[in-house]
Amino acid sequence: MDLLTGEMNSVAREIDKALGALLPPVEDYEAEVFEAMRYALLAGGKRLRPFLVLASTALFDVPIERARRAACALECVHTYSLVHDDLPCMDDDDMRRGKPTTHKKFGEATAVLAGDALLTLAFEILSDEATHHDPKVRADLVLALAQAAGAHGMVGGQMIDMLAETTSLDIGAVTRLQQMKTGALIRFAVDAGAIMGHATTDQKHALHNYAYDLGLAFQITDDLLDVEGSAEELGKAVGKDDKKETFVSLLGVERARMQANMLAEQAVIHMDHFDEKAELLRLLPHFVINRRS
Amino acid sequence: MDLLTGEMNSVAREIDKALGALLPPVEDYEAEVFEAMRYALLAGGKRLRPFLVLASTALFDVPIERARRAACALECVHTYSLVHDDLPCMDDDDMRRGKPTTHKKFGEATAVLAGDALLTLAFEILSDEATHHDPKVRADLVLALAQAAGAHGMVGGQMIDMLAETTSLDIGAVTRLQQMKTGALIRFAVDAGAIMGHATTDQKHALHNYAYDLGLAFQITDDLLDVEGSAEELGKAVGKDDKKETFVSLLGVERARMQANMLAEQAVIHMDHFDEKAELLRLLPHFVINRRS
Repeated sequence: MDLLTGEMNSVAREIDKALGALLPPVEDYEAEVFEAMRYALLAGGKRLRPFLVLASTALFDVPIERARRAACALECVHTYSLVHDDLPCMDDDDMRRGKPTTHKKFGEATAVLAGDALLTLAFEILSDEATHHDPKVRADLVLALAQAAGAHGMVGGQMIDMLAETTSLDIGAVTRLQQMKTGALIRFAVDAGAIMGHATTDQKHALHNYAYDLGLAFQITDDLLDVEGSAEELGKAVGKDDKKETFVSLLGVERARMQANMLAEQAVIHMDHFDEKAELLRLLPHFVINRRS
Repeated sequence: MDLLTGEMNSVAREIDKALGALLPPVEDYEAEVFEAMRYALLAGGKRLRPFLVLASTALFDVPIERARRAACALECVHTYSLVHDDLPCMDDDDMRRGKPTTHKKFGEATAVLAGDALLTLAFEILSDEATHHDPKVRADLVLALAQAAGAHGMVGGQMIDMLAETTSLDIGAVTRLQQMKTGALIRFAVDAGAIMGHATTDQKHALHNYAYDLGLAFQITDDLLDVEGSAEELGKAVGKDDKKETFVSLLGVERARMQANMLAEQAVIHMDHFDEKAELLRLLPHFVINRRS
């Protein structure tokens, strides 16, 4: 196993453990919403966003206990977005990562509530003193995550994505959609490093540009996998998006792959601002575009 | 018109204006989610929670521009909870305040997203420097609101409320349910005053106890109105909750009314900790139990 894969696996295990500890089961009438939150949160996954938080905070030697909390908060928001996106009134997905989706397992009402509670929990985690002794850092993390996740960020992107089923978008609109829908949280991941690490303006810009390119490369690869992949490999329905314009439908497979490669190269170059501590961040973009699921 | 009614009307107008300004319409593909957020947020209502924020911050001479932002954040959370609670998979309500509910007007998917975005916006507002110059106050407001709104607070209460349709709860369980479902946000309203005003521990406790009693009195009155009211007066379906245990079904009309009166008296007494600045807070409990809608 190479350095990056080993590190990513180790982060995934560490984050699973931290998420489980942040959200112990409760034994009261409201137990079911906690069960649904845990079910959605502990369903595995690559934990790419937490990995990015840990890798970017490591640039600035932020203590790992603090970095881990920010990573968990971000994963709560990512998970809530999956739970709500899977709902019958949204993408209507029955399976995710080879398991029934949260509403299939717990019912729709509980899934809505579990998503709401996970989003809320993210802000509870970030604003708690345990995340950072400096309240300015805590407030800045909350602000950055709220902006990334809200109607000008992820939720707005999801709104456009729904519209895309009936409206034909051009490459500019699809890029904007994806930079909102998936890019915004990926940018928050490295912003968290910059905020907690008191980065310089140059460092902030470098991390932001890195995340911008990485996020787009990630999404183009997702579109490529959706065309090429099999349902088994991805653990979810394939080809569902074929009414919608994607990077692949607009650029074709070859140009889309070239674009993803170029963005990955570019992301690596942005890391020239940092020393050898950025090694994992330099390896990640090529992992992202070469992944099989 | 008496002092309190005049003040409440004036606060309601002020908050409507502030909410509209915080959420200007946008003209891009994601416009619809902003329209739905504005539709839900600007549907009127008594603005009781914002009023409580303004009245409790006024005890400590917190500047009105700051208090107003905290009040708006709270109203965003309250509104999101109504939008999600009205969904077909939850209470399945078609009308609210005499108008179609958000999902009836914009569709379910947009309503889910608008609710998500309103919740997120609340934390964006609180963590912004414009709400308070001291980042400790901003972080504390975020933490208090997240705790009030999350699975140990409002969302947990909503979970129990759903369960109550099939499980028979006793008076203790119904009280706990309501202290979570509606009480938690009412307590946050006065906590906001205490946090922004750097209240003493005694003052914090007095405000907390006040909100505890007021919240319960409010809910008992709601249950009484549900039994007595007509659909026209309330602008929503009446008698929908008759499968569920309520304060009225458990205590009977007369004892429920006595209980609400007693709680209102008690709430007023908690205000003995404050001077004449608490006048509006002293008048509010009796308004709450004597309201007709």
